[in-house]
Amino acid sequence: MTLLYKADPDRGRQWAQWFAQKAPEIEFRLWPDIGNAADVRYLAAWTPPADIMESLPNVEVIFSVGAGIDQFDLSLVPPHVSVVRMKEPGIVEGMVEYVTQAVLTLHRDIFDYGQLQRERVWREMPVRAAATRRVGVMGLGMLGTAVLDTLRRFGFPCAGWSRSAHEIEGVECFAGVESLDAFLARTDILVCLLPLTDATRGIIDKHVFDTLPEGASFINVGRGPHVNQQDLLNALDSGRLHAAILDVTDPEPLPPAHAFWTHPRVRLTPHIASATRPESAVDVVLDNLRRHRAGERMIGEIDRTRGY
Amino acid sequence: MTLLYKADPDRGRQWAQWFAQKAPEIEFRLWPDIGNAADVRYLAAWTPPADIMESLPNVEVIFSVGAGIDQFDLSLVPPHVSVVRMKEPGIVEGMVEYVTQAVLTLHRDIFDYGQLQRERVWREMPVRAAATRRVGVMGLGMLGTAVLDTLRRFGFPCAGWSRSAHEIEGVECFAGVESLDAFLARTDILVCLLPLTDATRGIIDKHVFDTLPEGASFINVGRGPHVNQQDLLNALDSGRLHAAILDVTDPEPLPPAHAFWTHPRVRLTPHIASATRPESAVDVVLDNLRRHRAGERMIGEIDRTRGY
Repeated sequence: MTLLYKADPDRGRQWAQWFAQKAPEIEFRLWPDIGNAADVRYLAAWTPPADIMESLPNVEVIFSVGAGIDQFDLSLVPPHVSVVRMKEPGIVEGMVEYVTQAVLTLHRDIFDYGQLQRERVWREMPVRAAATRRVGVMGLGMLGTAVLDTLRRFGFPCAGWSRSAHEIEGVECFAGVESLDAFLARTDILVCLLPLTDATRGIIDKHVFDTLPEGASFINVGRGPHVNQQDLLNALDSGRLHAAILDVTDPEPLPPAHAFWTHPRVRLTPHIASATRPESAVDVVLDNLRRHRAGERMIGEIDRTRGY
Repeated sequence: MTLLYKADPDRGRQWAQWFAQKAPEIEFRLWPDIGNAADVRYLAAWTPPADIMESLPNVEVIFSVGAGIDQFDLSLVPPHVSVVRMKEPGIVEGMVEYVTQAVLTLHRDIFDYGQLQRERVWREMPVRAAATRRVGVMGLGMLGTAVLDTLRRFGFPCAGWSRSAHEIEGVECFAGVESLDAFLARTDILVCLLPLTDATRGIIDKHVFDTLPEGASFINVGRGPHVNQQDLLNALDSGRLHAAILDVTDPEPLPPAHAFWTHPRVRLTPHIASATRPESAVDVVLDNLRRHRAGERMIGEIDRTRGY
């Protein structure tokens, strides 16, 4: 039983150590040292090789090393190969931390105080109670649900929007395109945690920024292509949008000349909100290998027709 | 029954409205419109007048409008006058928000990413799990306890230090001067939430920074005079301390020439972590007035011998 790892080599070496310790019966290979390609039944990858059916003809399962699989070109993966997203606790913890920090940064005016510090001005601004700051999360999967569960404990009125209907304790849930405007109109801090699909590409556009209340803010921890970046810049420059915290851009890395780098109301981080942690990721992959051998559905296995 | 308010006049007008609505039987006066000074039984103030016994001879209770009373010169207040700190939910909520934001800012390297953004560099740094980032809070009163209760839910190993012994669920508690070094040696992010007394003035000094682990960080939401500011600058400049987030300084406002304003590893906010909110503060004062009339101990009434 052979698993091939094809992603960041530093993390790959950590995966190798955990596999050696937790499942020595599995042969773990690190790309590009494939060995006999015919042995490889399982692939853990950020992106599979484009010629996967020729180069790895016996692959049965592809594990994404990230939470999403939008970086995969699924048209190159034949239907009998299972594709599995990474659902492991380290990803959730990181995302909850990042989004909580970002929401509190906006809520407590830390952007504005940073500007005052640069000007050496000691001036307090009025404090708004959390009960008057409405947070809205687009995307109610594992990550969106965990983020909302933490934010509502701070007293923010919380809402969520997704394609299909959800029920989450303490969260007002909106479903479907027809409810998007109502969701936006009640949202002071908008968080994008959607999966990237053809239906969500470019969804955050001028209409969204025009429908949010004047002075709202935006946090993107989904994917760069969810956002029309020119519409975002226009909304910031007109003052309609107060600030944006972006962990993802299009493309990545963001070219040095891009306006986001120097915009006074944009905070940029290099796609670090949440990362797979080798130890817990290996635990999840081992559990899924057991499920696969037992003929059970794997945790995070995607529906190839929906694409997520 | 007359209450005189002597603090920020904007907030005073909000207090006046809430008193008119919630307790119209109480005559509410706004400094400097004292009227007949002999009527004034109750004073709500940031600082009482220096000649309080001459100018307000019949005062029975002084309510601080802030969480602390270190801004009072208690030697000017005769022993028969009760002094009451402000213990109201708005103060707690603001402090929990501010400290959580500050701890997550340090934990997720947002200082360092800010520097990379200014340099237009897209480079990720390793993510540390919350389970490996030890937070320690000095001061286990109402605010310290509430802050720890929120932080431990993120998975940070949490400890608290105070003069007297405490037991707090999920928090390792240290008590007394003899345990301070052990508390510091296990603390990666140190939060000061102590009351300011003669025993705590200057307590955060070179010894503290030398005892924290190399690369630790510091958050001050107590009072400026808790800190030896030159020792803090030295610890930052030597690299022993990674960063400092300061909401309080000595003096306040901080003079424009002070090194904190421009230090690349200092974030400064103008004493805004937590503020009394007029509506909930008025509720607390009205409850205490009822207790006072009934001969009960008031919530937040200080022990004049300890000074807090």
